[in-house]
Amino acid sequence: MARLPRIGVMIGDPGGIGPEVCVRALASGCPQKQGQIVLIGSAEVLRRAARVTGVDMPVTVVSSPDEAAAAAGIAVIDPGAEAGAAFETGKPSARSGRAAKAWIDRAEQLSRDGALDGWIMAPVDTGSMRLAGVVQDLDDLQPAGTFMFRMSGPLRVVPIAEHLPMRDVAASVTAERISHVARLTRDHLIRWGMAAPRLAVAALNPHAMFEEDRDIIAPAVAALRREGLNITGPVSPDAVFRQCIEGRYDAVISMYHDQGQIALKTAAFAGACTVYLGLPYVQMSVPHGTAFDIAGQGIAQPDSMIAAMTTALALAGGVAFLKAAAE
Amino acid sequence: MARLPRIGVMIGDPGGIGPEVCVRALASGCPQKQGQIVLIGSAEVLRRAARVTGVDMPVTVVSSPDEAAAAAGIAVIDPGAEAGAAFETGKPSARSGRAAKAWIDRAEQLSRDGALDGWIMAPVDTGSMRLAGVVQDLDDLQPAGTFMFRMSGPLRVVPIAEHLPMRDVAASVTAERISHVARLTRDHLIRWGMAAPRLAVAALNPHAMFEEDRDIIAPAVAALRREGLNITGPVSPDAVFRQCIEGRYDAVISMYHDQGQIALKTAAFAGACTVYLGLPYVQMSVPHGTAFDIAGQGIAQPDSMIAAMTTALALAGGVAFLKAAAE
Repeated sequence: MARLPRIGVMIGDPGGIGPEVCVRALASGCPQKQGQIVLIGSAEVLRRAARVTGVDMPVTVVSSPDEAAAAAGIAVIDPGAEAGAAFETGKPSARSGRAAKAWIDRAEQLSRDGALDGWIMAPVDTGSMRLAGVVQDLDDLQPAGTFMFRMSGPLRVVPIAEHLPMRDVAASVTAERISHVARLTRDHLIRWGMAAPRLAVAALNPHAMFEEDRDIIAPAVAALRREGLNITGPVSPDAVFRQCIEGRYDAVISMYHDQGQIALKTAAFAGACTVYLGLPYVQMSVPHGTAFDIAGQGIAQPDSMIAAMTTALALAGGVAFLKAAAE
Repeated sequence: MARLPRIGVMIGDPGGIGPEVCVRALASGCPQKQGQIVLIGSAEVLRRAARVTGVDMPVTVVSSPDEAAAAAGIAVIDPGAEAGAAFETGKPSARSGRAAKAWIDRAEQLSRDGALDGWIMAPVDTGSMRLAGVVQDLDDLQPAGTFMFRMSGPLRVVPIAEHLPMRDVAASVTAERISHVARLTRDHLIRWGMAAPRLAVAALNPHAMFEEDRDIIAPAVAALRREGLNITGPVSPDAVFRQCIEGRYDAVISMYHDQGQIALKTAAFAGACTVYLGLPYVQMSVPHGTAFDIAGQGIAQPDSMIAAMTTALALAGGVAFLKAAAE
């Protein structure tokens, strides 16, 4: 990459803690060591966030990521959405929902155009989005055809499906889906700097001892091995995540949402984040919500946002795993 | 309880590491501080185990737990099963399977009669059991009508079903089963010394957002609360185990095997063990297998067996959670 990686951060629902964690993350100085961050949202909201968090950096409005490189302090692209009156803090509102959607659209556009190498979504609120009539469910914000790659310390998990009811899970396990997600994971890990990714596929059933494990997952994994992937499975679901934590695999393909989420949230390493697989740029979200109850108080901790910013820059630069190895 | 608690330990498959971890656990001196341990198995096998592990304690054959109190060193009830020739070490055999079954039967009998307050099963082997024609599957050794209570540090989980294929899981979630397991868990925790157990019921589906969560689990939990249980649910499966680890609940009722097992094995606290709910005595197993590959070498670590012995004695004495609180 000829220039430093550039990541946009959509500041989240303006009534939540997103703006505060954005300015505190930049005040830490950590993300800027890895590349360039430009915020996308309301400059006015960010100035208020800087005030309540005691962050002594100017907020500079820029018109493009190119301009941001030379800007002093915190660079923000402000599309001017819903300007003219203050956003309410600490609760959902249609105004906030409409503004958040406009900022998301701008972040996506800049990433698609290559002006950004990707973007991070700070926490948005379903309530605001519904009041604005933008989406009914946060799931609707997931880009079509993508899969969620969740990282938490040494544990990395990609489920082949998201919020399905358990009664529909077994029928959703197909060789096509497993192969697609495995190849996508392999390709992204290589793009992000991992020389030879080692993947595991979780079994669907306890101890990998039932029909789908034998008749669907095992043949799919065997075919992927013949194709050249370094992939193991089906591995007993109660063993595979611990084995990943211990370094036996670089990522686990899981068969349903909770299979991996239970492992991720129980292990609870610091700095967890989610990247979408299937896009030409890095798109990431943070693992906390808008925290309306503490918004505006300047007390929200920026650790998750710092981790998301540094990880996104490292992924975009193709050095995420080189760096980990060098540490 | 007028006398110290008494726990029997069936020494496991004689060809595995069970006999070695039994003698090493007793050589640590820890379990004996909490009560009385009597082994059940072959005295000859235990003498060999003491030799290879360098444990310098006599193995004394006794005819009953009563006699064991006065016995020197390691007390063993030896039913004489399959005596007359050495057991093979490091592999399954029909002889080992038949002996293990005889020792299990004796341990159960002594517990049912009240001569023991319960017993622990050291690792047995499915291969030996099948060769002996005793059982086809280790699941067959689970006492009828019982549920497995798994403990690992602060995480305690009881699933309402064991090795079901995932496609049958949703249909197995019934209000009757949830209520039965919740009451059983509450009763056992009180018997074991916990004044006011706080239970949680995991949802079946991601984020507790589908039909069974709303129509089956929520009303079952509401009815249990009216009955006087301190119980919460349905709680999102990816949050409930972390919340238990953090001390919000004393135990979690889980909806399927892997839901809890993924959390238990990912968290991987030291000293995990399993107790059966639904028996008038304590019956427990350890979370490792026969490890035929290292059997006979004297190198198997006894930590899990020490934890099982001390936990079983504390449960049988009704002081398991008083002790935890006092520490």
